[in-house]
Amino acid sequence: MIKKKAVVLLSGGLDSTTLLAFAIDKGFDCHTISFSYGQRHKTELACAQNIASFYSVTEHKVIEIDLRAFGGSALTSEMDVPKDRSMQEMDKEIPITYVPARNTIFLSFALAYAEVISACDIFIGVNAVDYSGYPDCRPEYIAAYENMANLATKSGVEGETRLKINTPLLKLKKSEIIQLGLDIGVDYSKTFTCYDPNNEGVSCGKCDSCLLRKKGFAELNLTDPISYQV
Amino acid sequence: MIKKKAVVLLSGGLDSTTLLAFAIDKGFDCHTISFSYGQRHKTELACAQNIASFYSVTEHKVIEIDLRAFGGSALTSEMDVPKDRSMQEMDKEIPITYVPARNTIFLSFALAYAEVISACDIFIGVNAVDYSGYPDCRPEYIAAYENMANLATKSGVEGETRLKINTPLLKLKKSEIIQLGLDIGVDYSKTFTCYDPNNEGVSCGKCDSCLLRKKGFAELNLTDPISYQV
Repeated sequence: MIKKKAVVLLSGGLDSTTLLAFAIDKGFDCHTISFSYGQRHKTELACAQNIASFYSVTEHKVIEIDLRAFGGSALTSEMDVPKDRSMQEMDKEIPITYVPARNTIFLSFALAYAEVISACDIFIGVNAVDYSGYPDCRPEYIAAYENMANLATKSGVEGETRLKINTPLLKLKKSEIIQLGLDIGVDYSKTFTCYDPNNEGVSCGKCDSCLLRKKGFAELNLTDPISYQV
Repeated sequence: MIKKKAVVLLSGGLDSTTLLAFAIDKGFDCHTISFSYGQRHKTELACAQNIASFYSVTEHKVIEIDLRAFGGSALTSEMDVPKDRSMQEMDKEIPITYVPARNTIFLSFALAYAEVISACDIFIGVNAVDYSGYPDCRPEYIAAYENMANLATKSGVEGETRLKINTPLLKLKKSEIIQLGLDIGVDYSKTFTCYDPNNEGVSCGKCDSCLLRKKGFAELNLTDPISYQV
């Protein structure tokens, strides 16, 4: 049986690694795509490459784009990444780590890739629970993107196929994502989450991303297999 | 009075130059964006820069992206650009010069730029008449993109503003676009249209884009101010 092709957005983080493992577990022929977008650290790109190799994906593409050209986010500029925020603070507003239109840009490259390889499925690890502050992580955004994508492409015009944006992590808490991954054999020691690691690539343990990850493992009474500065 | 900000997609071609002139004529404070996307020629990027300077736009950004990473189009690969096609042939099918998801990718960068500078208007020179074969030039695609964009961004979430994708050329024939431009003083000798110029940057006169342009001027009984190889 020929496997269905899928394009999987892979950052090398906990969520996208779980996502890739999930797509493979569901029997997809996975093509992964990572972005080099002027992140302040390259550790996550190396993680993505390692994970793509570990899962023997059919093809792993790294696309260079320069989101720094526009500024506007702590993840791509010299702004300080916020530390030690409470869950309430994270929920309250759109964080300065939000990169304008990032998921829209990422999905658009995934769409081009999907069209070229004739894949009908794109997987993206967005999450509306822990990242409720990001507009482009909401279910209504994903639905609108899928609708647009089906009008944007040859396949949509020719009515051959319908493209689907798969978001299996959308409504899961971090602990549920980790549990899902553990159930299908994900090795979380290979994943990387931190927004602001030190020069050796060790996670800070204090940014929103580290705090959510640590909380997820704690809720499962598990030890996070990666090291933190604190 | 403070002018409203707009992001204008500018390729340096006939359509996008008319578009920029139109947006300026309507009183917008224009920020232009061009893409270096592995085109086989760089003449159009130079044209875009010249036109942006001529119109004294507030800022002109050139974004480097590599659409060749995916292949799949004569405009970004080694495939031959089709020549001397009739209007019927152009209408019949999606041409191989179609770049997968190109407008979706371009609009997504424009969206990021618009969000960072707090612009509520994006201008794109898509045309559903002469480019009926391109799925991402259709009105229903643009409407779906606008809907998605308003869910993707901070402004959409916070309900402050509504982003609009402006497509003033959408329903105009090429001759009508040229007439619109002439009415507001566009100098078409500065614009560049060809898919396949020679090494000196002279337009081929035979690709779909040249043929449509020549036909437009001919319908107005005007001489196209640029030179052609044939």
